[in-house]
Amino acid sequence: MPRADDFTRRHIGPDPQQIAKMLETLGLESMDHLIEQTIPESIRSSQPFRLPEALDENRLNKLTRQIAAKNTAAISMIGMGYHGTVTPPVIRRNVMENPDWYTAYTPYQPEVSQARLEVLITFQQMITDLTGMELANASLLDEATAAAEAMMMARRVGKNKSNRFFVDGDCLPQTIAVVKTRAIPMGIEVVVGDLDALKQGQYFAGLFQYPGTSGLIQDFKTEIETLKANGALIIMAADPLALTQLTPPAELGADIAVGSTQRFGVPMGFGGPHAAYFATHEKYKRSIPGRLIGVAIDSAGRPAYRMALQTREQHIRRDKANSNICTSQVLLAVMATFYAQYHGPEGLDRIAKSVNRLTRALAEGLKEIGFDIVHQEFFDTIIVRTPGRADYYVDKAEQARYNLRKVDSDHVGMTLDETLNREKIEGLVQVFAGSTPERVSGIIFDRDLPPSIPESFHRTSEYLTHPNFHLYRSETEFMRYLRKTASKDITLARSMIPLGSCTMKLNAASEMEGISNPLFAHIHPFAPAKHTGGYHQIIDELDNLLCQLTGFARFSFQPNAGSQGEYTGLLCIRALHHSQGEAHRNVCLIPSSAHGTNPASAVMAGMKVVVVKCDSDGNIDLDDFREKAEFNSDNLAATMVTYPSTHGVFEESIKTICDIVHQHGGQVYMDGANMNAMVGICRPAEIGADVMHLNLHKTFAIPHGGGGPGMGPIGVGEHLIPFLPDHPVVSCNNHGSSPLGTISAAPWGSPLILLISWAYIRLLGTYGQKRSTQVAILNANYMAHRLDPHYPVVYRGANEMVAHECVVNLAPLKESSGITVEDVAKRLVDYGFHAPTMSWPVPDSLMIEPTESESLAEIDRFCDALIKIRQEIRDIEEGKASQENNLLKNAPHSYHLLVQDEWEFPYTRQQAFFPTREMRENKYWPPVGRVDNVYGDRHLVCTCPPLSDYEDSPPQQDAA
Amino acid sequence: MPRADDFTRRHIGPDPQQIAKMLETLGLESMDHLIEQTIPESIRSSQPFRLPEALDENRLNKLTRQIAAKNTAAISMIGMGYHGTVTPPVIRRNVMENPDWYTAYTPYQPEVSQARLEVLITFQQMITDLTGMELANASLLDEATAAAEAMMMARRVGKNKSNRFFVDGDCLPQTIAVVKTRAIPMGIEVVVGDLDALKQGQYFAGLFQYPGTSGLIQDFKTEIETLKANGALIIMAADPLALTQLTPPAELGADIAVGSTQRFGVPMGFGGPHAAYFATHEKYKRSIPGRLIGVAIDSAGRPAYRMALQTREQHIRRDKANSNICTSQVLLAVMATFYAQYHGPEGLDRIAKSVNRLTRALAEGLKEIGFDIVHQEFFDTIIVRTPGRADYYVDKAEQARYNLRKVDSDHVGMTLDETLNREKIEGLVQVFAGSTPERVSGIIFDRDLPPSIPESFHRTSEYLTHPNFHLYRSETEFMRYLRKTASKDITLARSMIPLGSCTMKLNAASEMEGISNPLFAHIHPFAPAKHTGGYHQIIDELDNLLCQLTGFARFSFQPNAGSQGEYTGLLCIRALHHSQGEAHRNVCLIPSSAHGTNPASAVMAGMKVVVVKCDSDGNIDLDDFREKAEFNSDNLAATMVTYPSTHGVFEESIKTICDIVHQHGGQVYMDGANMNAMVGICRPAEIGADVMHLNLHKTFAIPHGGGGPGMGPIGVGEHLIPFLPDHPVVSCNNHGSSPLGTISAAPWGSPLILLISWAYIRLLGTYGQKRSTQVAILNANYMAHRLDPHYPVVYRGANEMVAHECVVNLAPLKESSGITVEDVAKRLVDYGFHAPTMSWPVPDSLMIEPTESESLAEIDRFCDALIKIRQEIRDIEEGKASQENNLLKNAPHSYHLLVQDEWEFPYTRQQAFFPTREMRENKYWPPVGRVDNVYGDRHLVCTCPPLSDYEDSPPQQDAA
Repeated sequence: MPRADDFTRRHIGPDPQQIAKMLETLGLESMDHLIEQTIPESIRSSQPFRLPEALDENRLNKLTRQIAAKNTAAISMIGMGYHGTVTPPVIRRNVMENPDWYTAYTPYQPEVSQARLEVLITFQQMITDLTGMELANASLLDEATAAAEAMMMARRVGKNKSNRFFVDGDCLPQTIAVVKTRAIPMGIEVVVGDLDALKQGQYFAGLFQYPGTSGLIQDFKTEIETLKANGALIIMAADPLALTQLTPPAELGADIAVGSTQRFGVPMGFGGPHAAYFATHEKYKRSIPGRLIGVAIDSAGRPAYRMALQTREQHIRRDKANSNICTSQVLLAVMATFYAQYHGPEGLDRIAKSVNRLTRALAEGLKEIGFDIVHQEFFDTIIVRTPGRADYYVDKAEQARYNLRKVDSDHVGMTLDETLNREKIEGLVQVFAGSTPERVSGIIFDRDLPPSIPESFHRTSEYLTHPNFHLYRSETEFMRYLRKTASKDITLARSMIPLGSCTMKLNAASEMEGISNPLFAHIHPFAPAKHTGGYHQIIDELDNLLCQLTGFARFSFQPNAGSQGEYTGLLCIRALHHSQGEAHRNVCLIPSSAHGTNPASAVMAGMKVVVVKCDSDGNIDLDDFREKAEFNSDNLAATMVTYPSTHGVFEESIKTICDIVHQHGGQVYMDGANMNAMVGICRPAEIGADVMHLNLHKTFAIPHGGGGPGMGPIGVGEHLIPFLPDHPVVSCNNHGSSPLGTISAAPWGSPLILLISWAYIRLLGTYGQKRSTQVAILNANYMAHRLDPHYPVVYRGANEMVAHECVVNLAPLKESSGITVEDVAKRLVDYGFHAPTMSWPVPDSLMIEPTESESLAEIDRFCDALIKIRQEIRDIEEGKASQENNLLKNAPHSYHLLVQDEWEFPYTRQQAFFPTREMRENKYWPPVGRVDNVYGDRHLVCTCPPLSDYEDSPPQQDAA
Repeated sequence: MPRADDFTRRHIGPDPQQIAKMLETLGLESMDHLIEQTIPESIRSSQPFRLPEALDENRLNKLTRQIAAKNTAAISMIGMGYHGTVTPPVIRRNVMENPDWYTAYTPYQPEVSQARLEVLITFQQMITDLTGMELANASLLDEATAAAEAMMMARRVGKNKSNRFFVDGDCLPQTIAVVKTRAIPMGIEVVVGDLDALKQGQYFAGLFQYPGTSGLIQDFKTEIETLKANGALIIMAADPLALTQLTPPAELGADIAVGSTQRFGVPMGFGGPHAAYFATHEKYKRSIPGRLIGVAIDSAGRPAYRMALQTREQHIRRDKANSNICTSQVLLAVMATFYAQYHGPEGLDRIAKSVNRLTRALAEGLKEIGFDIVHQEFFDTIIVRTPGRADYYVDKAEQARYNLRKVDSDHVGMTLDETLNREKIEGLVQVFAGSTPERVSGIIFDRDLPPSIPESFHRTSEYLTHPNFHLYRSETEFMRYLRKTASKDITLARSMIPLGSCTMKLNAASEMEGISNPLFAHIHPFAPAKHTGGYHQIIDELDNLLCQLTGFARFSFQPNAGSQGEYTGLLCIRALHHSQGEAHRNVCLIPSSAHGTNPASAVMAGMKVVVVKCDSDGNIDLDDFREKAEFNSDNLAATMVTYPSTHGVFEESIKTICDIVHQHGGQVYMDGANMNAMVGICRPAEIGADVMHLNLHKTFAIPHGGGGPGMGPIGVGEHLIPFLPDHPVVSCNNHGSSPLGTISAAPWGSPLILLISWAYIRLLGTYGQKRSTQVAILNANYMAHRLDPHYPVVYRGANEMVAHECVVNLAPLKESSGITVEDVAKRLVDYGFHAPTMSWPVPDSLMIEPTESESLAEIDRFCDALIKIRQEIRDIEEGKASQENNLLKNAPHSYHLLVQDEWEFPYTRQQAFFPTREMRENKYWPPVGRVDNVYGDRHLVCTCPPLSDYEDSPPQQDAA
């Protein structure tokens, strides 16, 4: 008898009876039989998996709180790009803790993603307003990588063709480290310095922090003029809260502005996740990295949002892409946008002025008791001179629960934020006053304090003037706005999202609970180790759990997205070759079926991509592989393979492939996208992988958040441990320093969400993890079985089995009926489903992955929909329906069509809207018709359209 | 400059610009001017209101956590009707913490309440299944009051006409106390005893606890036969978890079964809120108290749920009602139902068996180390013999964080629940083993343990066989089920709920946060005081805050609903008269405009209701009042008045009324339903009230939960303090014992939700509380101003002002067009709004209360809808539309109509579904058409219909 509280039963969709039924349908005797038929024996691990005993949810919850209590939520004044902030409770409850927001997928299907797209374009509006730039993308991974992306873009578009990049010395240390790491494989020379350094030579661009790490609001006029005179581009990393008070970067001459929106209501979370921003001139629209949301129109000419200019991106442009960014930080960008909408410009102004006033009061208070403040021009950060006694004061403050920044042995830094108040500032002055009898600080607040922002930097331009930032001030209005908006999207809270390769499994409420705990949420990434014991326990345990599951020797959690994992893994391999005096090894073999991020990452790691063919069964062409490995033997650096393959098959040859690469001196990089098919059954390290990233937001239950956050930690064999990334502020690789460098802003990437994967593994335990994999494979094979008669399954492994996903071929339908994959995908929306992955890795196909979390009922409902759609296509094939004007070409059917008094279509409303019986009780109402992609790219608008665009929108006349 | 984090701005809907605009529209100069014009000076308090300084949300959050830390979440084994339980996280997150569920109103409008109604009928199904009875209501306030209601019903319907009520001695002490209190004013004699007592005389009914407080599963066969032989009714108070294992009450001969569903996933919360159940024979359907949900059909003949047989209830039947119950515990009944659906019968069985097995292991373990167990027949509770050392062992256990029950100085009780496990039980045995060297208990678990449930009590009948208890086992399915269901209802998360007298204001996320804190949630009401310091702080502070706001000397928090408050207040008055030798005073003057609960409560308190007329302006007819007071002078006990009046007017005469009552030796009971119009401006005690209940779920921001929980604490003047209720287990009235007795199961009613009101007052502070009242009045007057030209406002006070609500007259429309109030209410649903209060207190009227939380935009949207509807009515008046077949008579328009290929109505789809422009972007889709009330009462079905009822539902034919 399983325990009543066994969570595995809750995570897995089908119950034992349903599983038995599915096995029977497939002619299989048992789960073991299924796995024997599916995964080659040589691939399965012979060593037992030993995870700690599964916890029930109640125990997990208690344990999480106990571990949280090992962190200390001190008063954080370390600054350096991370700030205390208040997440408005209405946003925390209705967004961060609401599956309608956090379980959404990346908005590739715009018709079911209007909510996220609408908020993301508001994010872009917010960033263009604050920076003064013309064009902003919708979020990058963190400020440091955004700065690195800016460097890369400047190199692509800049007029100055030198290979030198200037970085002002007052930039954030983690930004400098990431930029340097990124520069090396690209052959860029990074010079960190001041005006003198800048004048000595040519640069293609320069990076400035605004205000600086020291807090100084520096006038970079001469620097900017000097660089511009030589055709170099200006990049400014700017604090968005400061920008409410300071002249925006565009007005200072910046060509690119980057920064972090963390302090807009997103908890520090020991380093992440947070959304970075990237803004530039409109003329660089084709060169900007990351997602760009644009306004387009739908089939009825109504405004609709979509991702614009996608051909810039890795999923289409592969090794020619502007960057390798895929998952970014949508949920966090959404939260930051809501924060700005909740406060409005007047609220942000009040917060900024209050932070600045507190900082000025602190400076005055410290001066009054005899301390020197290094700079007088600041927004929220001051440096106090404490000759020889920095450690003393930092320690003393720590005892009073203040975390300050030790700049060097003579200086202490203090950064203020909206969570501070008069009492806390008075307390801090008291710490510095020590035994001085009088409490002088109190008086400060009642005085006129000298201004700290130079007049020449006073912001004069307006911002956040769009009505979106003014409509929802009361909590009631805001709650309704959030609810109304959320209801536009299809998320996991509505129905299955059967995306091949993207593994949209359950994100359980109890797994999500830890991230709301203030003792995890409000921890600064550079807080002293004694204040972060809880985090270290989670990170260490998760490292061990993942090593147990994969066979690797160590994990690095610095890569904060899958693409970052790939890039980091390749940099590890590169560093290994360099350490062995084989710096010339730079060829990376990548099968043609690889994810777009693979070649894009390889290019970033300075490698030369050599594409290997696939055979007609979708397997890697072993002959071609062997040939290319031999041909490139001397220079072979690595191969990147996905296992099981992106065609949804356990290739028998994987071990051979690994052997070939090793024989030729290369390393094997395994892409972890499909790890969901192996957990608890196979160990990638035993198969032959040297390094692999895991998409914790796929396999290990972190929600997709509508397009991030993700986490892409990499596991490596013993021999690669010394090459794992480190961090300039807090060392996170036991070896102290790493030849690789630093790849993310924070030492452990986005630690807050590691809690989710940790909880997931602890809840399921060994049995649950293996069982999940088995059911994921069972579900996929059951679907393949049901769909094959209607849509032939393209690839199968030995014994005619698929892995955890299946690819079905729609090419013949295009021939016979003119119906495309896109038409089927959009028609699925009418049935209430998100489309599977379209035309990847095979043109004119759908790649379907049910995951273990979908029940038989839901899987059948989805198969029924696809089969019914096949019937609708048959009607076209048989001439019963028009080729141009039919249920599929006109899909999705926006609900606005319903109330048209004239129904213009050659089928009934019921066929259009309620093709099945169950939908009557649970209808998803598409808010827009099919979005016109071409129109959107031709008329690029990446900011919020005026509200009148909606008022005048065709084709309805108001009946009133 | 207001603080950036000032919460008052978030609570109040209109911003300062909107307020200025509204004042201008009304021709007023300022808020003060508004109040001067509205509230008579004599009524306004001349003393300043002194609340603690308003906290921002962040500080509130921290303070709440600090106070929570003063509670201790021990391992609770006290039992006595309260048990540890695990709220499945998917239910906590998506129901208890989701405004879609907790902000809903009572389901009087069935078309917008199908979600709650569907779950509540599932609750009834669950209760009928578990108890074996035929008919169950949808929740009462707690087990003790449910037992008292059972006693009252037995008296109404029983054949034995004696006035004696038998209570078995093993009933819960709080149940005995509540029953006794309830019996006195009714002239019922309660005899607590055993079989011997029972045989000595006649009883109209008997009450038995099953299993008993002692844990004993007693065979009451002889008792039941004896009572039945005399025509007495059998009432059993039964534990629903035990009923999964034990013969159900119906099979033992019970006529009524009552109990608490708390242990079905609802946290103990120091006593509440939880939902009690009440089940009986179908033949008593017209006598059952509380809400009954039934299946009916909508205008298209599709199944639809509604409240059935409402004529039994106080809001219609007033002093003839079966009970005074209004708000009960819907949200908690919903949670308990979801818990049962989540676990299903097999899960509940597993939990029950595991609890029983642990209890048996504990018994064996204790026996093994030499202790005696009193009863061998038990489910989850044992009594250990500890001669002379009960205190010693209770203390010792407490040091190890176990809370046990001291039965008497020789016995210790232990009750087990699903949160316990082997380790905890072993730990407890170790506590009793003391210095005994061997740890014996561990072995116990590996043995065959002797059974503890007598074979004759083994349950053989099935339960929870309906598919609703089997469809949703995985978390994914459950999450989607919750979301799909929730989307059927209109709640505050969608739009304004302008219910006159019900004050649907914002329930802020930060106010709700404390109730999720385990240190508040998992506290037993009888836990030792040293473990409940946090609760006592909240209760004491809230007492002081409410006294400051009302002018009363003390509050009692025992009444856990407004109706309970009324009843308790009247009992206080009764006790006062008795103490003064004036037991004959029993007349209660109640104006004809009073809430239905008033006369119903008065009857329960043993009073004679004398109705006082109202004049044509809606004011109490002062002459009639004076006359009736004089006529009843010798016997005058009290008057019950609502202020401002239920007509939405500040009557000038209120002080005169109070004086008259006092002159004649009576006491003034003020109904607090309209306190929202007075907070921070008037103090009821200064006006002349002696006692008053506050609806914390109206004025003080506790959400309505879809029909509860509520809290109805009463404030009293100094002279009534000695008569406040007390509790038999934990004293809660400083005077030790009270002549009044006990009115709720738990000492402080439902303390968990007191956190919400406490937070609300702390967030707003003095300014915010007053400002809220002002804006509530402003909003109402603005609405009255806008609506009056279209729907004349019936009542106004001096200066033509209304208070916080207004009544508009629709009677002329009935004449001119045949359109009724109900038609308008249902048509509002098409516009996305919940209807205002209908035809109360005036026939053919709407009573509209916007509250302070609605913004000008939303108020205008609502007024626009009503005005547009007036135009639709004019079309009928002018003969442009049919009298029978029109937009209003056919409202609401269920979305199922939309897909009919033939549109049969004499207006367009657009007019029906999208009468205004904004609705295009935010449409509420009514899931059913107008519900046929008569059909439902004629064909009473109060359990879940088979799913096939939906499959075959007319009128659609499947297009497939």
